[in-house]
Amino acid sequence: MTDKLAPKETNPKGEGFIPHLAVDAVIFGFHDNQLKVLLMQYSKTGRYALPGGFIQQTENLDDAAKRVASERTGLTDIFLEQFYVFGDIARHDPAPFSAFMAANGKEPDASHWLLQRFISIGYFALVDFTKVSPTPDKIFDSCDWYDLASLPQLIQDHNAIIHKALETLRAKLDDKLIGFNLLPQHFTMSELQSLYETILDKKLIRPAFQRKMLSLGILDRLAKKFSGGAHKAPYVYRFASK
Amino acid sequence: MTDKLAPKETNPKGEGFIPHLAVDAVIFGFHDNQLKVLLMQYSKTGRYALPGGFIQQTENLDDAAKRVASERTGLTDIFLEQFYVFGDIARHDPAPFSAFMAANGKEPDASHWLLQRFISIGYFALVDFTKVSPTPDKIFDSCDWYDLASLPQLIQDHNAIIHKALETLRAKLDDKLIGFNLLPQHFTMSELQSLYETILDKKLIRPAFQRKMLSLGILDRLAKKFSGGAHKAPYVYRFASK
Repeated sequence: MTDKLAPKETNPKGEGFIPHLAVDAVIFGFHDNQLKVLLMQYSKTGRYALPGGFIQQTENLDDAAKRVASERTGLTDIFLEQFYVFGDIARHDPAPFSAFMAANGKEPDASHWLLQRFISIGYFALVDFTKVSPTPDKIFDSCDWYDLASLPQLIQDHNAIIHKALETLRAKLDDKLIGFNLLPQHFTMSELQSLYETILDKKLIRPAFQRKMLSLGILDRLAKKFSGGAHKAPYVYRFASK
Repeated sequence: MTDKLAPKETNPKGEGFIPHLAVDAVIFGFHDNQLKVLLMQYSKTGRYALPGGFIQQTENLDDAAKRVASERTGLTDIFLEQFYVFGDIARHDPAPFSAFMAANGKEPDASHWLLQRFISIGYFALVDFTKVSPTPDKIFDSCDWYDLASLPQLIQDHNAIIHKALETLRAKLDDKLIGFNLLPQHFTMSELQSLYETILDKKLIRPAFQRKMLSLGILDRLAKKFSGGAHKAPYVYRFASK
Protein backbone atom coordinates (compact mmCIF):
# COMPACT_ATOMS: atom_id res chain seq x y z
CA MET A 1 0.00 0.00 0.00
CA THR A 2 2.98 2.34 -0.32
CA ASP A 3 1.34 3.79 -3.43
CA LYS A 4 -0.92 5.66 -1.03
CA LEU A 5 2.06 7.84 -0.23
CA ALA A 6 3.32 8.32 -3.75
CA PRO A 7 2.71 12.06 -4.17
CA LYS A 8 4.47 12.92 -0.91
CA GLU A 9 7.22 10.35 -1.17
CA THR A 10 8.33 11.79 -4.46
CA ASN A 11 8.25 15.33 -3.12
CA PRO A 12 10.09 15.33 0.22
CA LYS A 13 10.82 19.06 -0.02
CA GLY A 14 7.24 20.00 -0.85
CA GLU A 15 8.18 21.59 -4.14
CA GLY A 16 5.39 23.62 -5.67
CA PHE A 17 3.77 24.27 -2.29
CA ILE A 18 4.14 27.19 0.10
CA PRO A 19 6.15 25.77 3.00
CA HIS A 20 4.96 25.93 6.62
CA LEU A 21 1.42 26.84 5.58
CA ALA A 22 -1.64 24.57 5.58
CA VAL A 23 -5.40 24.86 5.24
CA ASP A 24 -7.77 22.80 7.37
CA ALA A 25 -11.49 22.55 6.67
CA VAL A 26 -14.15 22.18 9.36
CA ILE A 27 -17.18 20.97 7.43
CA PHE A 28 -20.29 20.89 9.60
CA GLY A 29 -23.27 18.82 8.54
CA PHE A 30 -26.85 19.56 9.62
CA HIS A 31 -30.03 17.58 9.13
CA ASP A 32 -33.15 16.91 11.13
CA ASN A 33 -31.92 18.39 14.43
CA GLN A 34 -28.47 16.86 14.22
CA LEU A 35 -25.17 18.72 13.86
CA LYS A 36 -22.09 16.74 12.85
CA VAL A 37 -18.59 17.34 11.58
CA LEU A 38 -16.64 15.60 8.82
CA LEU A 39 -13.49 13.74 9.93
CA MET A 40 -10.91 11.65 8.10
CA GLN A 41 -9.08 8.63 9.43
CA TYR A 42 -5.48 8.15 8.28
CA SER A 43 -4.70 4.95 6.50
CA LYS A 44 -3.24 2.24 8.79
CA THR A 45 -2.56 4.41 11.88
CA GLY A 46 -6.26 5.21 12.23
CA ARG A 47 -5.54 8.68 13.64
CA TYR A 48 -8.37 11.18 13.17
CA ALA A 49 -7.86 14.52 11.44
CA LEU A 50 -9.71 17.32 9.72
CA PRO A 51 -9.53 17.30 5.93
CA GLY A 52 -6.54 19.51 5.20
CA GLY A 53 -3.74 20.21 2.77
CA PHE A 54 -1.40 22.75 1.27
CA ILE A 55 -1.34 25.83 -0.92
CA GLN A 56 0.29 25.71 -4.33
CA GLN A 57 2.75 28.47 -5.11
CA THR A 58 0.60 29.52 -8.06
CA GLU A 59 -2.81 29.22 -6.43
CA ASN A 60 -5.07 31.70 -4.64
CA LEU A 61 -5.52 30.86 -0.97
CA ASP A 62 -9.32 30.46 -1.20
CA ASP A 63 -8.94 28.23 -4.28
CA ALA A 64 -6.47 26.07 -2.37
CA ALA A 65 -9.02 25.59 0.41
CA LYS A 66 -11.68 24.53 -2.08
CA ARG A 67 -9.33 22.17 -3.91
CA VAL A 68 -8.05 20.59 -0.70
CA ALA A 69 -11.54 20.03 0.73
CA SER A 70 -12.72 18.58 -2.55
CA GLU A 71 -9.68 16.29 -3.02
CA ARG A 72 -9.86 14.95 0.53
CA THR A 73 -13.61 14.48 0.88
CA GLY A 74 -15.04 14.35 -2.63
CA LEU A 75 -17.37 17.26 -1.74
CA THR A 76 -17.65 19.97 -4.37
CA ASP A 77 -19.61 23.23 -4.53
CA ILE A 78 -19.47 23.85 -0.81
CA PHE A 79 -19.10 27.40 0.44
CA LEU A 80 -15.93 27.51 2.54
CA GLU A 81 -15.10 30.60 4.53
CA GLN A 82 -11.96 31.54 6.46
CA PHE A 83 -12.49 31.79 10.19
CA TYR A 84 -9.13 31.79 12.02
CA VAL A 85 -5.40 31.16 11.67
CA PHE A 86 -3.77 28.69 14.05
CA GLY A 87 -0.15 29.71 14.47
CA ASP A 88 1.12 28.77 17.91
CA ILE A 89 4.45 27.02 18.13
CA ALA A 90 2.87 24.50 20.50
CA ARG A 91 0.64 23.08 17.77
CA HIS A 92 3.71 21.62 16.04
CA ASP A 93 3.56 17.84 16.49
CA PRO A 94 5.14 15.78 13.72
CA ALA A 95 4.51 12.45 15.48
CA PRO A 96 1.24 11.55 13.67
CA PHE A 97 2.86 12.12 10.26
CA SER A 98 6.01 10.17 11.15
CA ALA A 99 3.86 7.32 12.40
CA PHE A 100 1.69 7.44 9.30
CA MET A 101 4.69 7.36 6.98
CA ALA A 102 6.34 4.54 8.93
CA ALA A 103 3.12 2.50 8.98
CA ASN A 104 2.92 2.88 5.24
CA GLY A 105 6.39 1.50 4.62
CA LYS A 106 8.61 4.55 4.56
CA GLU A 107 10.61 5.89 7.47
CA PRO A 108 10.70 9.65 6.83
CA ASP A 109 13.80 11.79 6.94
CA ALA A 110 13.63 14.28 9.82
CA SER A 111 14.00 17.08 7.28
CA HIS A 112 10.85 16.02 5.38
CA TRP A 113 8.81 19.21 4.82
CA LEU A 114 5.66 17.69 6.35
CA LEU A 115 7.43 17.27 9.68
CA GLN A 116 8.22 20.98 10.00
CA ARG A 117 6.17 23.62 11.74
CA PHE A 118 2.91 24.52 10.01
CA ILE A 119 0.63 27.51 10.46
CA SER A 120 -2.89 26.48 9.50
CA ILE A 121 -5.58 28.68 8.00
CA GLY A 122 -8.96 27.38 9.15
CA TYR A 123 -11.98 27.33 6.81
CA PHE A 124 -15.49 26.25 7.70
CA ALA A 125 -18.67 25.29 5.89
CA LEU A 126 -22.12 24.02 6.80
CA VAL A 127 -23.93 21.58 4.53
CA ASP A 128 -26.97 19.29 4.65
CA PHE A 129 -25.28 15.96 5.30
CA THR A 130 -27.99 13.98 3.51
CA LYS A 131 -27.22 15.79 0.25
CA VAL A 132 -23.52 14.92 -0.06
CA SER A 133 -21.52 11.70 -0.24
CA PRO A 134 -18.11 12.07 1.42
CA THR A 135 -15.42 9.91 -0.17
CA PRO A 136 -11.90 9.75 1.27
CA ASP A 137 -8.86 10.20 -0.95
CA LYS A 138 -6.16 7.57 -1.02
CA ILE A 139 -4.21 8.53 2.10
CA PHE A 140 -7.28 8.08 4.29
CA ASP A 141 -9.31 4.99 5.10
CA SER A 142 -12.50 6.83 5.93
CA CYS A 143 -14.28 10.15 5.71
CA ASP A 144 -17.41 10.27 7.87
CA TRP A 145 -19.74 12.42 9.93
CA TYR A 146 -19.22 12.50 13.70
CA ASP A 147 -21.46 13.89 16.41
CA LEU A 148 -19.99 17.02 17.95
CA ALA A 149 -20.93 15.79 21.41
CA SER A 150 -18.73 12.69 21.14
CA LEU A 151 -15.71 13.55 19.00
CA PRO A 152 -12.70 11.25 19.01
CA GLN A 153 -9.24 12.59 19.89
CA LEU A 154 -7.86 14.25 16.78
CA ILE A 155 -4.23 14.91 15.81
CA GLN A 156 -2.44 18.11 16.86
CA ASP A 157 -4.86 20.94 17.77
CA HIS A 158 -7.66 19.77 15.48
CA ASN A 159 -10.16 19.43 18.36
CA ALA A 160 -9.48 23.08 19.26
CA ILE A 161 -9.87 24.08 15.60
CA ILE A 162 -13.34 22.50 15.54
CA HIS A 163 -14.26 24.29 18.77
CA LYS A 164 -13.22 27.66 17.32
CA ALA A 165 -15.12 26.95 14.09
CA LEU A 166 -18.25 26.12 16.07
CA GLU A 167 -17.96 29.40 17.98
CA THR A 168 -17.73 31.25 14.66
CA LEU A 169 -20.64 29.34 13.14
CA ARG A 170 -22.82 30.21 16.13
CA ALA A 171 -21.83 33.88 16.06
CA LYS A 172 -22.47 34.20 12.33
CA LEU A 173 -25.61 32.09 12.02
CA ASP A 174 -27.97 35.03 11.38
CA ASP A 175 -25.76 36.35 8.57
CA LYS A 176 -25.03 33.04 6.91
CA LEU A 177 -28.43 31.38 7.25
CA ILE A 178 -29.59 31.95 3.68
CA GLY A 179 -26.31 30.87 2.09
CA PHE A 180 -26.17 27.62 4.06
CA ASN A 181 -29.32 26.38 2.31
CA LEU A 182 -30.30 23.96 5.08
CA LEU A 183 -34.08 24.29 5.06
CA PRO A 184 -36.71 23.30 2.51
CA GLN A 185 -37.96 26.14 0.30
CA HIS A 186 -40.96 26.67 2.58
CA PHE A 187 -40.55 26.17 6.31
CA THR A 188 -42.30 26.96 9.58
CA MET A 189 -40.99 29.13 12.40
CA SER A 190 -40.77 25.94 14.40
CA GLU A 191 -38.42 24.32 11.86
CA LEU A 192 -36.26 27.42 11.82
CA GLN A 193 -36.14 27.46 15.61
CA SER A 194 -35.11 23.78 15.67
CA LEU A 195 -32.21 24.57 13.36
CA TYR A 196 -31.04 27.37 15.68
CA GLU A 197 -31.50 25.24 18.79
CA THR A 198 -29.47 22.41 17.30
CA ILE A 199 -26.59 24.60 16.17
CA LEU A 200 -26.56 26.76 19.30
CA ASP A 201 -27.12 23.68 21.47
CA LYS A 202 -29.68 25.39 23.68
CA LYS A 203 -33.43 25.88 23.95
CA LEU A 204 -34.80 29.21 22.76
CA ILE A 205 -37.97 31.01 23.82
CA ARG A 206 -40.41 31.16 20.93
CA PRO A 207 -41.76 34.74 21.13
CA ALA A 208 -38.27 36.26 21.49
CA PHE A 209 -36.86 34.02 18.75
CA GLN A 210 -39.70 34.82 16.36
CA ARG A 211 -39.42 38.55 17.06
CA LYS A 212 -35.68 38.47 16.39
CA MET A 213 -35.97 36.45 13.18
CA LEU A 214 -38.71 38.73 11.80
CA SER A 215 -36.62 41.79 12.66
CA LEU A 216 -33.72 40.51 10.52
CA GLY A 217 -35.81 41.20 7.41
CA ILE A 218 -34.76 37.99 5.69
CA LEU A 219 -38.09 36.14 5.84
CA ASP A 220 -41.19 36.37 3.66
CA ARG A 221 -44.39 35.07 5.25
CA LEU A 222 -46.59 33.24 2.76
CA ALA A 223 -50.37 33.55 2.60
CA LYS A 224 -52.04 30.77 4.57
CA LYS A 225 -53.87 28.16 2.61
CA PHE A 226 -57.25 27.11 3.97
CA SER A 227 -56.49 23.74 5.52
CA GLY A 228 -60.02 22.62 6.24
CA GLY A 229 -58.84 20.96 9.43
CA ALA A 230 -59.85 21.69 12.96
CA HIS A 231 -56.37 22.82 14.01
CA LYS A 232 -54.77 26.08 13.09
CA ALA A 233 -52.07 25.53 10.45
CA PRO A 234 -48.79 27.32 11.21
CA TYR A 235 -47.56 30.18 9.09
CA VAL A 236 -45.08 29.19 6.41
CA TYR A 237 -42.01 31.28 5.51
CA ARG A 238 -39.37 31.43 2.82
CA PHE A 239 -36.16 33.44 2.60
CA ALA A 240 -36.74 36.84 1.02
CA SER A 241 -35.11 37.13 -2.38
CA LYS A 242 -32.87 40.18 -2.74
CA MET B 1 21.46 55.94 4.51
CA THR B 2 22.08 52.33 3.43
CA ASP B 3 22.25 51.41 7.11
CA LYS B 4 18.45 51.67 7.05
CA LEU B 5 18.45 48.45 5.11
CA ALA B 6 21.03 46.60 7.13
CA PRO B 7 18.88 43.85 8.65
CA LYS B 8 17.38 42.88 5.31
CA GLU B 9 20.50 43.37 3.22
CA THR B 10 22.38 40.91 5.35
CA ASN B 11 19.57 38.39 5.17
CA PRO B 12 18.60 38.07 1.50
CA LYS B 13 17.09 34.63 2.05
CA GLY B 14 15.03 35.68 5.05
CA GLU B 15 16.69 33.17 7.35
CA GLY B 16 14.91 32.76 10.67
CA PHE B 17 11.57 33.85 9.18
CA ILE B 18 8.72 31.81 7.76
CA PRO B 19 8.90 32.46 4.01
CA HIS B 20 5.94 33.77 2.00
CA LEU B 21 4.05 34.77 5.15
CA ALA B 22 3.55 38.30 6.50
CA VAL B 23 1.45 40.05 9.11
CA ASP B 24 -0.06 43.49 8.47
CA ALA B 25 -1.61 45.61 11.21
CA VAL B 26 -4.56 47.93 10.68
CA ILE B 27 -4.45 50.19 13.74
CA PHE B 28 -7.50 52.42 13.95
CA GLY B 29 -7.42 55.51 16.13
CA PHE B 30 -10.53 57.11 17.61
CA HIS B 31 -10.95 60.35 19.51
CA ASP B 32 -13.58 63.04 19.72
CA ASN B 33 -15.70 61.89 16.76
CA GLN B 34 -12.76 61.17 14.51
CA LEU B 35 -11.69 57.78 13.17
CA LYS B 36 -8.22 57.46 11.67
CA VAL B 37 -5.76 54.77 10.63
CA LEU B 38 -2.01 54.51 11.20
CA LEU B 39 0.13 54.49 8.05
CA MET B 40 3.87 54.37 7.44
CA GLN B 41 5.79 56.07 4.68
CA TYR B 42 8.80 54.21 3.26
CA SER B 43 12.11 55.98 3.47
CA LYS B 44 13.07 57.84 0.24
CA THR B 45 10.37 56.39 -2.06
CA GLY B 46 7.59 57.85 0.08
CA ARG B 47 5.24 54.97 -0.68
CA TYR B 48 2.53 54.43 1.92
CA ALA B 49 2.01 51.08 3.64
CA LEU B 50 0.44 49.48 6.67
CA PRO B 51 2.85 48.59 9.47
CA GLY B 52 3.78 45.00 8.67
CA GLY B 53 6.47 42.38 8.99
CA PHE B 54 7.31 38.72 9.27
CA ILE B 55 6.97 35.73 11.58
CA GLN B 56 10.04 34.20 13.15
CA GLN B 57 10.38 30.44 12.87
CA THR B 58 10.36 30.15 16.66
CA GLU B 59 7.59 32.64 17.41
CA ASN B 60 3.84 32.26 17.94
CA LEU B 61 1.82 33.97 15.22
CA ASP B 62 0.02 36.35 17.61
CA ASP B 63 3.33 37.27 19.26
CA ALA B 64 4.77 38.06 15.84
CA ALA B 65 1.90 40.44 15.14
CA LYS B 66 2.47 42.26 18.45
CA ARG B 67 6.23 42.45 17.93
CA VAL B 68 5.90 43.70 14.35
CA ALA B 69 3.36 46.39 15.25
CA SER B 70 5.47 47.50 18.16
CA GLU B 71 8.76 47.57 16.20
CA ARG B 72 7.24 49.51 13.31
CA THR B 73 5.15 52.03 15.19
CA GLY B 74 6.54 52.19 18.74
CA LEU B 75 3.06 51.32 20.08
CA THR B 76 2.98 48.73 22.85
CA ASP B 77 0.16 47.15 24.83
CA ILE B 78 -2.36 47.37 22.04
CA PHE B 79 -4.87 44.58 21.62
CA LEU B 80 -4.41 43.18 18.12
CA GLU B 81 -6.84 40.65 16.75
CA GLN B 82 -6.75 38.57 13.57
CA PHE B 83 -9.43 39.47 11.08
CA TYR B 84 -8.62 37.99 7.65
CA VAL B 85 -5.93 36.36 5.52
CA PHE B 86 -5.09 37.96 2.20
CA GLY B 87 -3.83 35.22 -0.11
CA ASP B 88 -4.68 36.01 -3.72
CA ILE B 89 -1.93 35.62 -6.29
CA ALA B 90 -2.89 39.05 -7.68
CA ARG B 91 -1.70 40.83 -4.53
CA HIS B 92 1.90 39.95 -5.38
CA ASP B 93 3.62 43.16 -6.44
CA PRO B 94 7.35 43.34 -5.71
CA ALA B 95 7.76 46.76 -7.40
CA PRO B 96 7.50 48.90 -4.23
CA PHE B 97 10.16 46.82 -2.47
CA SER B 98 12.51 46.84 -5.47
CA ALA B 99 12.10 50.59 -5.75
CA PHE B 100 12.67 51.03 -2.03
CA MET B 101 15.84 48.95 -2.08
CA ALA B 102 17.17 50.72 -5.18
CA ALA B 103 16.42 54.16 -3.71
CA ASN B 104 18.36 53.16 -0.63
CA GLY B 105 21.49 52.22 -2.54
CA LYS B 106 21.10 48.51 -3.20
CA GLU B 107 19.74 46.96 -6.36
CA PRO B 108 18.11 43.74 -5.11
CA ASP B 109 18.61 40.32 -6.63
CA ALA B 110 15.38 39.02 -8.19
CA SER B 111 15.58 36.02 -5.88
CA HIS B 112 15.52 38.21 -2.75
CA TRP B 113 12.96 36.67 -0.39
CA LEU B 114 11.06 39.95 0.02
CA LEU B 115 10.27 40.03 -3.69
CA GLN B 116 8.49 36.67 -3.63
CA ARG B 117 4.78 36.04 -3.16
CA PHE B 118 3.46 36.76 0.35
CA ILE B 119 0.26 35.71 2.01
CA SER B 120 -0.59 38.28 4.66
CA ILE B 121 -2.44 37.69 7.92
CA GLY B 122 -4.35 40.85 8.80
CA TYR B 123 -4.63 42.05 12.41
CA PHE B 124 -6.58 45.05 13.62
CA ALA B 125 -6.76 47.19 16.74
CA LEU B 126 -8.58 50.32 17.86
CA VAL B 127 -6.89 52.81 20.18
CA ASP B 128 -7.43 56.34 21.44
CA PHE B 129 -5.04 58.23 19.19
CA THR B 130 -4.40 60.93 21.79
CA LYS B 131 -2.99 58.36 24.20
CA VAL B 132 -0.20 56.96 22.02
CA SER B 133 2.86 58.39 20.26
CA PRO B 134 3.59 56.59 17.01
CA THR B 135 7.28 56.48 16.14
CA PRO B 136 8.52 54.97 12.86
CA ASP B 137 11.36 52.46 12.80
CA LYS B 138 14.38 53.06 10.64
CA ILE B 139 13.07 51.88 7.30
CA PHE B 140 10.23 54.41 7.39
CA ASP B 141 10.29 58.20 7.34
CA SER B 142 6.95 58.66 9.03
CA CYS B 143 4.23 56.92 11.01
CA ASP B 144 1.07 59.02 11.26
CA TRP B 145 -2.71 59.03 11.57
CA TYR B 146 -4.73 59.47 8.37
CA ASP B 147 -8.42 60.16 7.96
CA LEU B 148 -10.25 57.17 6.54
CA ALA B 149 -12.20 59.42 4.20
CA SER B 150 -9.06 60.64 2.41
CA LEU B 151 -6.52 57.82 2.40
CA PRO B 152 -3.53 58.01 0.08
CA GLN B 153 -2.84 55.21 -2.41
CA LEU B 154 -1.08 52.43 -0.50
CA ILE B 155 1.21 49.69 -1.82
CA GLN B 156 -0.17 46.36 -3.03
CA ASP B 157 -3.66 45.59 -1.66
CA HIS B 158 -3.23 47.60 1.55
CA ASN B 159 -6.22 49.86 0.79
CA ALA B 160 -8.39 46.75 0.45
CA ILE B 161 -6.95 45.37 3.70
CA ILE B 162 -8.03 48.56 5.52
CA HIS B 163 -11.50 48.31 3.98
CA LYS B 164 -11.90 44.71 5.18
CA ALA B 165 -10.63 45.64 8.66
CA LEU B 166 -13.16 48.47 8.86
CA GLU B 167 -15.96 46.07 7.91
CA THR B 168 -14.84 43.75 10.71
CA LEU B 169 -14.53 46.58 13.24
CA ARG B 170 -18.07 47.70 12.47
CA ALA B 171 -19.49 44.18 12.68
CA LYS B 172 -17.76 43.48 16.00
CA LEU B 173 -18.21 46.85 17.69
CA ASP B 174 -20.80 45.63 20.24
CA ASP B 175 -18.57 42.75 21.32
CA LYS B 176 -15.31 44.66 21.44
CA LEU B 177 -16.54 47.92 22.89
CA ILE B 178 -15.35 47.36 26.44
CA GLY B 179 -11.91 46.09 25.43
CA PHE B 180 -11.24 49.06 23.17
CA ASN B 181 -11.29 51.40 26.16
CA LEU B 182 -12.19 54.50 24.13
CA LEU B 183 -14.53 56.30 26.51
CA PRO B 184 -13.92 57.99 29.84
CA GLN B 185 -14.86 55.92 32.89
CA HIS B 186 -18.26 57.62 33.06
CA PHE B 187 -20.03 58.62 29.87
CA THR B 188 -23.44 59.64 28.61
CA MET B 189 -25.59 57.77 26.11
CA SER B 190 -24.91 60.66 23.78
CA GLU B 191 -21.14 60.13 23.95
CA LEU B 192 -21.59 56.42 23.32
CA GLN B 193 -23.84 57.14 20.35
CA SER B 194 -21.26 59.56 18.90
CA LEU B 195 -18.64 56.83 19.06
CA TYR B 196 -20.91 54.42 17.17
CA GLU B 197 -21.90 57.05 14.63
CA THR B 198 -18.27 57.91 13.93
CA ILE B 199 -17.14 54.31 13.51
CA LEU B 200 -20.21 53.21 11.54
CA ASP B 201 -20.16 56.48 9.57
CA LYS B 202 -23.92 56.96 9.81
CA LYS B 203 -26.48 58.71 12.00
CA LEU B 204 -28.39 56.54 14.45
CA ILE B 205 -31.84 57.06 15.94
CA ARG B 206 -31.57 57.66 19.69
CA PRO B 207 -34.44 55.55 21.08
CA ALA B 208 -33.51 52.48 19.02
CA PHE B 209 -29.80 52.93 19.78
CA GLN B 210 -30.42 53.34 23.51
CA ARG B 211 -32.74 50.33 23.60
CA LYS B 212 -30.16 48.19 21.83
CA MET B 213 -27.26 49.30 24.02
CA LEU B 214 -29.22 48.68 27.21
CA SER B 215 -30.26 45.23 25.94
CA LEU B 216 -26.60 44.21 25.55
CA GLY B 217 -26.28 44.13 29.33
CA ILE B 218 -22.86 45.77 29.35
CA LEU B 219 -23.84 49.13 30.85
CA ASP B 220 -24.39 50.18 34.46
CA ARG B 221 -26.48 53.33 34.92
CA LEU B 222 -25.21 55.48 37.76
CA ALA B 223 -27.43 57.27 40.25
CA LYS B 224 -28.06 60.85 39.17
CA LYS B 225 -26.45 63.54 41.24
CA PHE B 226 -28.61 66.55 42.05
CA SER B 227 -27.27 69.16 39.67
CA GLY B 228 -29.09 72.18 41.05
CA GLY B 229 -29.49 73.53 37.54
CA ALA B 230 -32.64 74.25 35.65
CA HIS B 231 -31.86 71.68 32.95
CA LYS B 232 -32.19 67.97 33.34
CA ALA B 233 -28.75 66.36 33.58
CA PRO B 234 -28.33 63.27 31.37
CA TYR B 235 -27.92 59.83 32.86
CA VAL B 236 -24.33 58.67 33.19
CA TYR B 237 -23.19 55.12 32.45
CA ARG B 238 -20.14 52.97 32.94
CA PHE B 239 -19.27 49.54 31.60
CA ALA B 240 -20.51 46.78 33.87
CA SER B 241 -17.66 44.93 35.53
CA LYS B 242 -17.84 41.17 35.05
